[in-house]
Amino acid sequence: MTGKKQTLVWLAASIWLLFASASGAATYRDLDQQQLWYLELDTGRVVIELNDTFAPKTVAQIKQLTRAGIYDGVSFYRVIDGFVAQAGPGDTPLSDSAIKRLGQTSIPTLPMESVLPWSNARAFTPVQRQDLFAPQTAFSAGFAVGLNATSSEAWLLHCPGAVGIARGNEPDSATSDFYVVIGQAPRYLDGIMTVFGRVVWGMDKVQAILRADPQGSGVMAPDEPQTRIQRAVLGSDLPPEQQLMLAVERTVGEAFEQKLAARKLRDHPFFFKRPPAVLDACQVPIAVQLGT
Amino acid sequence: MTGKKQTLVWLAASIWLLFASASGAATYRDLDQQQLWYLELDTGRVVIELNDTFAPKTVAQIKQLTRAGIYDGVSFYRVIDGFVAQAGPGDTPLSDSAIKRLGQTSIPTLPMESVLPWSNARAFTPVQRQDLFAPQTAFSAGFAVGLNATSSEAWLLHCPGAVGIARGNEPDSATSDFYVVIGQAPRYLDGIMTVFGRVVWGMDKVQAILRADPQGSGVMAPDEPQTRIQRAVLGSDLPPEQQLMLAVERTVGEAFEQKLAARKLRDHPFFFKRPPAVLDACQVPIAVQLGT
Repeated sequence: MTGKKQTLVWLAASIWLLFASASGAATYRDLDQQQLWYLELDTGRVVIELNDTFAPKTVAQIKQLTRAGIYDGVSFYRVIDGFVAQAGPGDTPLSDSAIKRLGQTSIPTLPMESVLPWSNARAFTPVQRQDLFAPQTAFSAGFAVGLNATSSEAWLLHCPGAVGIARGNEPDSATSDFYVVIGQAPRYLDGIMTVFGRVVWGMDKVQAILRADPQGSGVMAPDEPQTRIQRAVLGSDLPPEQQLMLAVERTVGEAFEQKLAARKLRDHPFFFKRPPAVLDACQVPIAVQLGT
Repeated sequence: MTGKKQTLVWLAASIWLLFASASGAATYRDLDQQQLWYLELDTGRVVIELNDTFAPKTVAQIKQLTRAGIYDGVSFYRVIDGFVAQAGPGDTPLSDSAIKRLGQTSIPTLPMESVLPWSNARAFTPVQRQDLFAPQTAFSAGFAVGLNATSSEAWLLHCPGAVGIARGNEPDSATSDFYVVIGQAPRYLDGIMTVFGRVVWGMDKVQAILRADPQGSGVMAPDEPQTRIQRAVLGSDLPPEQQLMLAVERTVGEAFEQKLAARKLRDHPFFFKRPPAVLDACQVPIAVQLGT
């Protein structure tokens, strides 16, 4: 029995190694509380890293709306398992106090920030050429990105945990509502929606968000139970004792390159037959550490 | 305000269309209760369609172990967000009553059933040539499959919701424990693990399964709270009033071909810039209807 138990524990540890190869050697960078968006959901705490390299205007507006309390008490009103969970004030008119805090009577529309001119001088680590949806995938500061054939343009990928801003048919129509990818990456949205962040803590709390009836449109009926955002706040606006000291795996440098290489090579005995030596950038876990 | 509300509802409906294009025209097939595996979790009811075309011996053993009560009361003991949730008796010795019900003192190991000799005479619908991980992807009776270059072999894909049987390093070492894919498809496991089913109902209840500490190995410590399988049962062993009358979208025929084509084409005005005309077979939702 002990033998069997050891085998199973070892098996579990071994499969974990396949999943997070070489993560023991990873190095980490501390996250800046000014770039962390804390969402206190009914299901628990979620922390999103904002990306103002790729989406500076969107991030600035998210911060402004957060400080005006626009997201406090709103619900995830469109939740489709395997796709996205979307939340925001929707069509609710701004309250007098929100107008006062915001300094304007309505929320301005945002320009599309889906594709960034790219310079090879930027630090990034290549993942895969001829990915199904992009000529090249890579990691840049923890985010999975796509690059065009000449690496002159880059965009954030719609991997699970990616956070984007909702819009209408017009490219520059986004205002406040946002979505989190909760299923297989909807990569067809890459480059045509503004991704502005990614979940770095509490993805399990995102996955616990109540779904709409799977036989409906995905938008919840008023009488369907919905998961609320009790409070949204920037890390730098929290008292220090309420901040999470998060550090994420560095996605530049030798340790990370080795991790990617090991995930392509799959030379563990578990692989009695080697899989194709390719990597889906959305299936590379980026480790997170919680400090004290 | 009404105008804005209408716009938002329309927007939501419109994005849904992008997700489930042409599903209005879908046709359905009723599922056979003999092929449905009901798991009553602490989080709610999950129904898995078993696939005995691809994994006949594994399915037969899962049914036998289920009828012997092997899965009743066991926990999801290895749950890694974005990867898999794994459950089963693990190293627990069989009880006297289980031995009696099972008619044997231990659980036999299973042969690998990961790759099936394939005949083009089988009904399947192609999805994508030169997929990152497979020469060809397709759907066969609701399941996403990979095909080799000559279509002489096929295997079930590790898409979200796929259910496979755990094993050690030896290919033919699986016994009882199983995993459900809960994140971006770990396609590097295709063809080297036996997938024997897929979740057709209650994937939200699977996503609500408690995760292990993200900073650990993924295997839960004894004192970590775990989600239990209260009871596992085959649909055909349930009284009719407890069965769910499930029907799934047919994945052969003109309606489904049109759906795939529309998802590649993306000609809705929302797509001000067309994405690449490719499809990730794991990102094609297969509709399910609940009858009465």
